[in-house]
Amino acid sequence: MRTVKIGLLGVGVVGSAVAKAIIDDRGTTERSGVKLELARAAVRDLSKQRAVDLSPELLTADPHDVVSNPDVDVVVELMGGENPAFELITAALSSGKHVVSANKEVLAKRGDELLATATQSGAQLIYEASVGGGIPILNTISNELLANRIESIRAIINGTTNYILTRMSGEGAAYSDVLADAQRLGYAEADPTADVDGFDALYKIAILGQLAFGTSAPVDGIHREGIGRIDARDFRYAEELGFTIKLIAAAQRTEAGLLLRVHPSLVPLDVPMASVNGALNMVEVEGDLVGPLWLQGAGAGPEPTASAVLGDVLNVARTASNGASQSSIDPLPLAPMVGHHCQYYLRLTAADQPGVLAQVATVLGDADISIRSVIQMDTDETAGQADLVIMTHSALEANMQEAVSRLRSLDVVVELDNLIRVESY
Amino acid sequence: MRTVKIGLLGVGVVGSAVAKAIIDDRGTTERSGVKLELARAAVRDLSKQRAVDLSPELLTADPHDVVSNPDVDVVVELMGGENPAFELITAALSSGKHVVSANKEVLAKRGDELLATATQSGAQLIYEASVGGGIPILNTISNELLANRIESIRAIINGTTNYILTRMSGEGAAYSDVLADAQRLGYAEADPTADVDGFDALYKIAILGQLAFGTSAPVDGIHREGIGRIDARDFRYAEELGFTIKLIAAAQRTEAGLLLRVHPSLVPLDVPMASVNGALNMVEVEGDLVGPLWLQGAGAGPEPTASAVLGDVLNVARTASNGASQSSIDPLPLAPMVGHHCQYYLRLTAADQPGVLAQVATVLGDADISIRSVIQMDTDETAGQADLVIMTHSALEANMQEAVSRLRSLDVVVELDNLIRVESY
Repeated sequence: MRTVKIGLLGVGVVGSAVAKAIIDDRGTTERSGVKLELARAAVRDLSKQRAVDLSPELLTADPHDVVSNPDVDVVVELMGGENPAFELITAALSSGKHVVSANKEVLAKRGDELLATATQSGAQLIYEASVGGGIPILNTISNELLANRIESIRAIINGTTNYILTRMSGEGAAYSDVLADAQRLGYAEADPTADVDGFDALYKIAILGQLAFGTSAPVDGIHREGIGRIDARDFRYAEELGFTIKLIAAAQRTEAGLLLRVHPSLVPLDVPMASVNGALNMVEVEGDLVGPLWLQGAGAGPEPTASAVLGDVLNVARTASNGASQSSIDPLPLAPMVGHHCQYYLRLTAADQPGVLAQVATVLGDADISIRSVIQMDTDETAGQADLVIMTHSALEANMQEAVSRLRSLDVVVELDNLIRVESY
Repeated sequence: MRTVKIGLLGVGVVGSAVAKAIIDDRGTTERSGVKLELARAAVRDLSKQRAVDLSPELLTADPHDVVSNPDVDVVVELMGGENPAFELITAALSSGKHVVSANKEVLAKRGDELLATATQSGAQLIYEASVGGGIPILNTISNELLANRIESIRAIINGTTNYILTRMSGEGAAYSDVLADAQRLGYAEADPTADVDGFDALYKIAILGQLAFGTSAPVDGIHREGIGRIDARDFRYAEELGFTIKLIAAAQRTEAGLLLRVHPSLVPLDVPMASVNGALNMVEVEGDLVGPLWLQGAGAGPEPTASAVLGDVLNVARTASNGASQSSIDPLPLAPMVGHHCQYYLRLTAADQPGVLAQVATVLGDADISIRSVIQMDTDETAGQADLVIMTHSALEANMQEAVSRLRSLDVVVELDNLIRVESY
């Protein structure tokens, strides 16, 4: 068992979620073989109330107390913005501390310099959470897809704009109305520029481009268009043509080199990206061996971001300790299928006569199964039979199995054709 | 730079793709800092023609020549089946060789014993390719999601059955007809039992359950139903109720423990799994921090499987050499946006009078842009204006920018409202 001491830079919503996940543990130590410990946390305002209760001696108002603290093994930078993050990350790396960052702006703008500092000092700098929140796209490209020559990355990578576009598409609403509503609901900032004008997506695609293609692009040299010109009519017309509209960030290998671009795009309705709705993100990555691969999930939010941050911390700790740590999970016992709860779809061939439904419903009711809907479908008048389709409310598998065997013995049931479970969401 | 010598067990379609990817390199050495070398390959028939040209001295008909060969660092097992794979993997691990396997059956049935042997000998056993082909689900759970308590895994994880169900859904065809056609086209085996009766999905969910929840389940103790009873009518009825039908394999944390189940399920039409069609696979994993995450891609096929196999080999090589190897990618140059090719959607407010289209089409034609469709949409009769929506064929960005500025100067064009690029697939 190895203990890793963490220094936090920034304890806002994401920082609080990270601190809470460390304190609560939830089996992480056992799974990873690494014990995480919060050693120091720099905040702007010492007296502010936070979502997590931290002991006062952990807190400091001076971030240098974190980056130069000999007790800290890994610095987790969650301040955002180029400065002072650049200077603090540099200081931490130079003193041999590993750094995990969620800061897209500093990595997009100064990533080269930071990575060079890391190489020089032998410390690791990783930043899964800077792109796609909880979606593990950076590590997938760096590790799992390492045998692939990456050909193309395309992404819906900004939740605010995807939320706005999804609502415009669904409601036929105007951009300005939806934006105002998104601001009211907290999906968009009071100054929405970073999102709606594509800067956020731009930083993220610059990071992906650097990682997958080795190409560092000055962020102001990347083609960028926001969503402000998209009109309700564009959605209507696009749909008639078989498309929807998404803000796409792309990094693609072309004959001329790496093409980076951020702009609204028409996306065919039958491809995976077209159905990524609301604040969800999706990254489509195409490798020469794997072909296209799609990763979809929460692109923001405190807990998903904490998932990526702590995944990085644990993996830094494991590689830094020379190879995989010994880890083991306390196994769950196996649960029997008869304890499963779900809705059921039941198709019967039944006699087409009065009283059938009453008999069927009685059997189900006796087994403690509520009926949600019954539809009489195709009728075979010659045979005097009809298809009966029953959708139940959630019920216990054991009860349903009991009901099924009783239904089979009813005279009015010619055949119990199918019993299919319904996945719940 | 570290060289890793690979011994192959099995050179069928997947083995040939793995060998070819190693030989062709495609930048892998540079990306990973690891040079892969094929040292030995065991085949059943030495004289058989293969998709890859291997020098005769590499080949052997005796798999023990591979597992006990002192020249081999990593054994890649692609034979499939429980025996003799179990004995060969055990022998390789016992002699300290790392093993990468794509063999779902042996891992589902004997994974516990194999992992115990690996722990004892200090060698690594990894098997990303055994589940989901090129989809990196096992490593995502083991590494990127390490900070999460996994709550649920649900997957469409057998391409053959998903192909059959997708065609039944789309065509209203009968199961037996689609199965026969799938066999003719090579999507289903002559004896389709392993796929259509759910054994393949069962092995894969058993592996996922072991990895994510630490629970080893005897494979014959897992609830398993195939797709043979699904009828064309079930799709019709399900759709009326708002569902489609998929073969789902699930491993879920419940109050009673880990519930493993493989059976056809009704899946709501508006969730990501409902639109996973054809031979594609999708794994939905839910962690306590990250929430739901969806990974979608090719669940089988020689190149996607080779992607997973070689990803494992490279990562074994990197961790085995004590920490990350030095790697660097030769950066691509940046390509300018003006060199981008795509279709364009163009929305104009134009004078509602004869000859307008001719003028617009001339400007586009002069810029070497072909029109795919023109639709006159909403007309404002009072103002004498109409919306004109033009979809082009693929064109060059530079040409389109030139055309746009000329279109803006036309008298008949009141406003060029929007120009949106179309993503190509």
